Amino acid sequence: MSHRYRIAVIPGDGIGREVVPEGVRCLAAAAQAHGFEFEIAEFDFACADYWLRHGEMLPPDWREVLGGYDAIFFGAVGWPEVVPDHVSLWGSLLQFRRGFDQYVNLRPVRLLRGVRSPLRDRQPGDIDFLVVRENTEGEYSSIGGRIFEGTDRETVVQETVMTRIGVDRVLRYAFDLAAARPRKHLTWATKSNGISITMPYWDERATAMAQRYPDVTADKDHIDILTAKFVLRPQQYDVVVASNLFGDILSDLGPACAGTIGIAPSANINPDRTWPSLFEPVHGSAPDIAGRGIANPVGQIWSGAMMLGHLGELAAAAQVVAAIETVLDERPEVLTPDLGGSGTTEGLGAAIAAEITA
Amino acid sequence: MSHRYRIAVIPGDGIGREVVPEGVRCLAAAAQAHGFEFEIAEFDFACADYWLRHGEMLPPDWREVLGGYDAIFFGAVGWPEVVPDHVSLWGSLLQFRRGFDQYVNLRPVRLLRGVRSPLRDRQPGDIDFLVVRENTEGEYSSIGGRIFEGTDRETVVQETVMTRIGVDRVLRYAFDLAAARPRKHLTWATKSNGISITMPYWDERATAMAQRYPDVTADKDHIDILTAKFVLRPQQYDVVVASNLFGDILSDLGPACAGTIGIAPSANINPDRTWPSLFEPVHGSAPDIAGRGIANPVGQIWSGAMMLGHLGELAAAAQVVAAIETVLDERPEVLTPDLGGSGTTEGLGAAIAAEITA
Ligand SMILES: CC(C)[C@H](C(=O)O)[C@@H](O)C(=O)O
Ligand SMILES: CC(C)[C@H](C(=O)O)[C@@H](O)C(=O)O
Repeated sequence: MSHRYRIAVIPGDGIGREVVPEGVRCLAAAAQAHGFEFEIAEFDFACADYWLRHGEMLPPDWREVLGGYDAIFFGAVGWPEVVPDHVSLWGSLLQFRRGFDQYVNLRPVRLLRGVRSPLRDRQPGDIDFLVVRENTEGEYSSIGGRIFEGTDRETVVQETVMTRIGVDRVLRYAFDLAAARPRKHLTWATKSNGISITMPYWDERATAMAQRYPDVTADKDHIDILTAKFVLRPQQYDVVVASNLFGDILSDLGPACAGTIGIAPSANINPDRTWPSLFEPVHGSAPDIAGRGIANPVGQIWSGAMMLGHLGELAAAAQVVAAIETVLDERPEVLTPDLGGSGTTEGLGAAIAAEITA
Repeated sequence: MSHRYRIAVIPGDGIGREVVPEGVRCLAAAAQAHGFEFEIAEFDFACADYWLRHGEMLPPDWREVLGGYDAIFFGAVGWPEVVPDHVSLWGSLLQFRRGFDQYVNLRPVRLLRGVRSPLRDRQPGDIDFLVVRENTEGEYSSIGGRIFEGTDRETVVQETVMTRIGVDRVLRYAFDLAAARPRKHLTWATKSNGISITMPYWDERATAMAQRYPDVTADKDHIDILTAKFVLRPQQYDVVVASNLFGDILSDLGPACAGTIGIAPSANINPDRTWPSLFEPVHGSAPDIAGRGIANPVGQIWSGAMMLGHLGELAAAAQVVAAIETVLDERPEVLTPDLGGSGTTEGLGAAIAAEITA
C-alpha cells in the first residue's frame, strides 16, 4: 500500500499563484514516479483578497485548520497596494513560522549547471552552501513602540530578543548539519563589534556550542564583511548560521551570487515535528512581474523537493533536484527571463515535471 | 599666506598603523602641490596598547583633546586577542561618532580604472554610487541587557532606537546629495516587512522627505533584495541611504562588488561643523595580515581625499583621487595582493604620493 501525504497548499499573492501550480505539478509527477500519493487541500487565506473580504489575513482557527497536515506548501504573500507589507507578513507568514515553532529556516545556495553566476569565473560546484536562519526571534520582534508622536521628540524603539533556548536550538541544528557534511565547516554570522549586547551573546553561545563539535571547524564573520566575502570568496562557505535578520539577508544575497533569487528554495522547519513545517521559495510575491506568466517556478519546485525530503521521500527529493538541473542545463528554450531565456512559468514547470517522469 | 589645517592623526591598531603613514604622506604631497599646510598631531590612544596601559581606550578628556582640530584622520581599531571588539569599538570609534555627533557616514562606492570587479562584465563607470549611513543611533544602541543569566530562561534584549531628529537629518543630507547629482536618484534601504516597528517609521519619514524633493526619484528596497541587487544590477544605484546597521552592510558589500574593501574610504561627518569630522577607511585593523606590510593603503589615502574636500580643498581632493586611479590603472607592479599584485603598502603609497606631486 502506497503512502499518502496530506499537504496544505497556500498560493498567497502575486507570483505565488503562478508558481505554486507548477510546484504542485512537479510534486504530482514525483508521486507518480515514486509510488506514493498526495492529498492536497488548497487554502485561500494569507493573501490580499482574503484580507479585503475579512479584514484579517488568516481565519482565527488557522492553527487547527492547518495543524493536522503533514506539511504546508506555500507560495508568497504581500500586495502592498492593498495591505501594508508588515501587516500582511506579520498577519500570515510570520504567524506560521512562530505559531508552528518553525525555528529553522534552511536555505540551500547552490550554483546549478545551466545557470550563469553574476560572479566572474564561478563554475557549478564553486558555490554550494546552506544558510541556516533562526526563524522565530531575534530582530523580528513585536516588542516596541512610538512616543511623542508627531513632535520633534518622536522616538521609536524596537527590541531584539534572543533567548538561550532559541539561540542554542538553531545553533545545534546547524552544527549537526555541518558535522554530517564532507567539509564539516561552519561559519556563524555576527556583528558583535557594533551590536554590543545581543550579538556578543550570540557569539558566546556559538563558541560554547562549537566546543561540543570538535570535528566541525567553526569560525565567525561579521555580517558586513560576510556579505563582501559571499561575493569575493563564496567557495569558502559550507554551513552559515545566522540570526533571523542576518539569515534573511544572506539567503537573498547568496542566491543572487548563484545566479538568481528565482530558483532559491526554503524550508521553515519544526525539527521536533510537533507542528507542520512550511516550504516556500525565498522570493516574494513580486508585484512588478505578477500576472505576466514569466515568474521562475524553480524556487517553488525546489522547495517542493525539500518538502519531499522532510517527508522521508529522499529518492523523490533527489530526483526533483536532478530534473531541475537537467532542464536548466539542457533546455535553454524553456528558461524564464531571469535566467536569460524567454520562456514562461508554465513551460518551465511542465518541462521539469516531464523530466521527473521521463 | 597659505592656509594651515590642524589635523589629529590616530593610527589605532593593526594595519591602521601601516596605512596611516601612507595617508599622511599623500596628504603632505597634496599640500605641497596645492600650497597649503598641515599641522599634524599624532595620538596613541584608541588602540589595544593604550588599553593595556590605561584600562580604557581613550583618555577621559578626549573631547577636549580632539575637539579643536579641523579634522581627525583615523586608521582602524580592534585587536580582539587583547580587547574584545565591542569593548574597543564602543570605547573609541563609536564614541567619536556619537560624541562628535558625526551623524552622516558617507561611503562612495566606485569601480576604478585598473581594478577588477568580481562581477562579470562590469566596467569602470558601471558602479558609482554613494552609501549614506546613519551613524549615531538605530541598531547600534547601548540600551538592553540580560536576565536569568546562566539558566534555560536566559534572555538578552537590545533596543533599536530611531528618533525623528536622527532619521530626518540623515535623510535630508542624502536627498540633498541626490538632488545635486546628475541622475538624482535615491534608494532607501528598509526592512519594513519584517522589522515591523522601527522600519515602517523609517519608510514613513523617507516618504515624507521625498515629497520635499520633487526632482529626486526616490524608491525603497528591502535590505535582503537590495544586497542581491548590488550584485545583479549595481549600475542602477546612485545615492543609497540606510540605517546604521544596513549602511554598515551595504558599505562593505558595495566595495566588494567594486573589487576590494581595501580601497573604500569613509567620512564620518558632522555637517553642522560643531565638532571635527573623522575620516577613516571602511576596512578594519585586519589582524590576519597586520605586520606584513602588504595592506592596501588606498582606502586610507582616499579617505584623506574626502578630508581635503571637507576642508574646502576641492582641487587637491580631486587630484588625490585622480592620482589613485592613475596608479591603479598604470602601475600594476606596485599593487598590493588584494588587488592581484605583489607590491607593498609603502610602495603603493609612495607611488600615489609621487603621482600627486608629478
Ligand atoms: C568596527 C565596526 C564597529 C564598524 C561599524 O560597524 O560601524 C565598522 O564595521 C565600520 O563600518 O566602520
Ligand atoms: C517577506 C519577509 C517578511 C520575509 C522575511 O524577511 O522573513 C522574506 O524576506 C523571507 O526571507 O522569507
